[in-house]
Amino acid sequence: MSIECLSSQRSFGGWHKRYRHRAASLGCDMVFAVYLPPQAESGQRLPVVYWLSGLTCTDENFMQKAGAHRVAAELGMIVVAPDTSPRGEDVPGDPDGGWDFGHGAGFYVNAAEAPWAEHYRMYDYVVDELPALIEANFPASDQRGISGHSMGGHGALICALKNPGRYRSVSAFSPICHPMDCPWGEKALSRYLGADRAAWRAWDATELIADAPERLPILIDQGEADGFLAEQLKPEALQAAADAAGYPLTLRLQPGYDHSYYFIASFIESHLRHHAQAMAVSVAIR
Amino acid sequence: MSIECLSSQRSFGGWHKRYRHRAASLGCDMVFAVYLPPQAESGQRLPVVYWLSGLTCTDENFMQKAGAHRVAAELGMIVVAPDTSPRGEDVPGDPDGGWDFGHGAGFYVNAAEAPWAEHYRMYDYVVDELPALIEANFPASDQRGISGHSMGGHGALICALKNPGRYRSVSAFSPICHPMDCPWGEKALSRYLGADRAAWRAWDATELIADAPERLPILIDQGEADGFLAEQLKPEALQAAADAAGYPLTLRLQPGYDHSYYFIASFIESHLRHHAQAMAVSVAIR
Repeated sequence: MSIECLSSQRSFGGWHKRYRHRAASLGCDMVFAVYLPPQAESGQRLPVVYWLSGLTCTDENFMQKAGAHRVAAELGMIVVAPDTSPRGEDVPGDPDGGWDFGHGAGFYVNAAEAPWAEHYRMYDYVVDELPALIEANFPASDQRGISGHSMGGHGALICALKNPGRYRSVSAFSPICHPMDCPWGEKALSRYLGADRAAWRAWDATELIADAPERLPILIDQGEADGFLAEQLKPEALQAAADAAGYPLTLRLQPGYDHSYYFIASFIESHLRHHAQAMAVSVAIR
Repeated sequence: MSIECLSSQRSFGGWHKRYRHRAASLGCDMVFAVYLPPQAESGQRLPVVYWLSGLTCTDENFMQKAGAHRVAAELGMIVVAPDTSPRGEDVPGDPDGGWDFGHGAGFYVNAAEAPWAEHYRMYDYVVDELPALIEANFPASDQRGISGHSMGGHGALICALKNPGRYRSVSAFSPICHPMDCPWGEKALSRYLGADRAAWRAWDATELIADAPERLPILIDQGEADGFLAEQLKPEALQAAADAAGYPLTLRLQPGYDHSYYFIASFIESHLRHHAQAMAVSVAIR
């Protein structure tokens, strides 16, 4: 579990740091970024929000563009951004050279099919290996929140829905809500998991929400001018499933906003406050 | 003066837009970005801060990474980010293939030497052509502020110092304060302006500040862990010249901060408030 610090930059009185480590669950070296707010130097253990990025991203997009450091510094919250897939020459990518499968497109699942199953286990990495690493190496409490964008919004939703008790809060921006029923999801799930669509249900938020054993309130922001909304994202499917199950979902449709980080930046403060409030409540209840 | 809109994205209740136009002063097509805050739809004319970026940047770096939209939306301020040099196949770049001269490195001067003099006239573009374009096409008042980073911090300082009455406010992040006396500046000025160092003085903030006919208060933030500080930036030279001239300069050395946009993001709110305050005072005085 040794980690190598690649860079360290002061930001809003805290530190943005990047690390490389050998990821046992993925069988490759991985880079992640962590924002440590000023309060990290106080000796107390701080809550952590895990951010899962979308297709083609690395650990860098969110840290550079979301404007999250300012809010995390105010709230005393650690933010961790992993990469979006296993990486390296030994890790097979999309045989067709696409950007929506393989490198940068791990979809936060555990693959079952060769040749993907050997490395593509981003679910295990995000849910287990990375938090263990963070909590061992940084002043991080076990108060965890999870959020993400697009493919990463899907990842945040399934990680929370599949792991009662593991997260205190969950939110998403423009998530792929029903991957079984959209081109991005069908391409990825059919390759990572195989042709049997029944096996895909365990990785689809709209399918999982009906039987979710925990009712963690979900906050979602979705831009109405998002070019991927109708074909790929389908929040209306998740909303219908949540309504049927009586699951607490707040879906905010934001007029005029697109799929970009300008949209994320516009609402990240609201999301981080949603996480902070849930984690403060959790602490108080204990 | 026709401009072509390339993209339009909602951000913090306003709009981030990119435009292409034929720049007469540069003899090439140029792209610039503008952030229009929500107040731009109110019918009133708003103050404008011009942001000049550093070496290798385009109009995009500041807009994506600085977190300025949030503050501009609150203050009701338009922000304009031009590119950092003339562009295109017809525009000669660095014959040595360097990143610190030519494309992305116009240094905000009017070149005097062939082959640069034909296109490299970023000073005229930034001081005259671009503001005229902005004020003709957007709800922009003639209340102008100017700021920038590194090479762009140098640009902001010289534009303000050389044009009394044209700007209401000026600030800079990690500016190249004394280009006559640093490797980046010596390379650029010797090529754009020729071997006679006497001609360089008109483009060097440390030289200009002694005789500046207007005393616009300058705000500068400089990271103490900036790897370019000692060799390239030299704020101590500007400070000494300002002190000798009795010029109002606030130079803030920020412990631990480097040369990156994480540094800029950490202090951009303070800078935009400095500009807003100066422009509000100017309006009140009129």
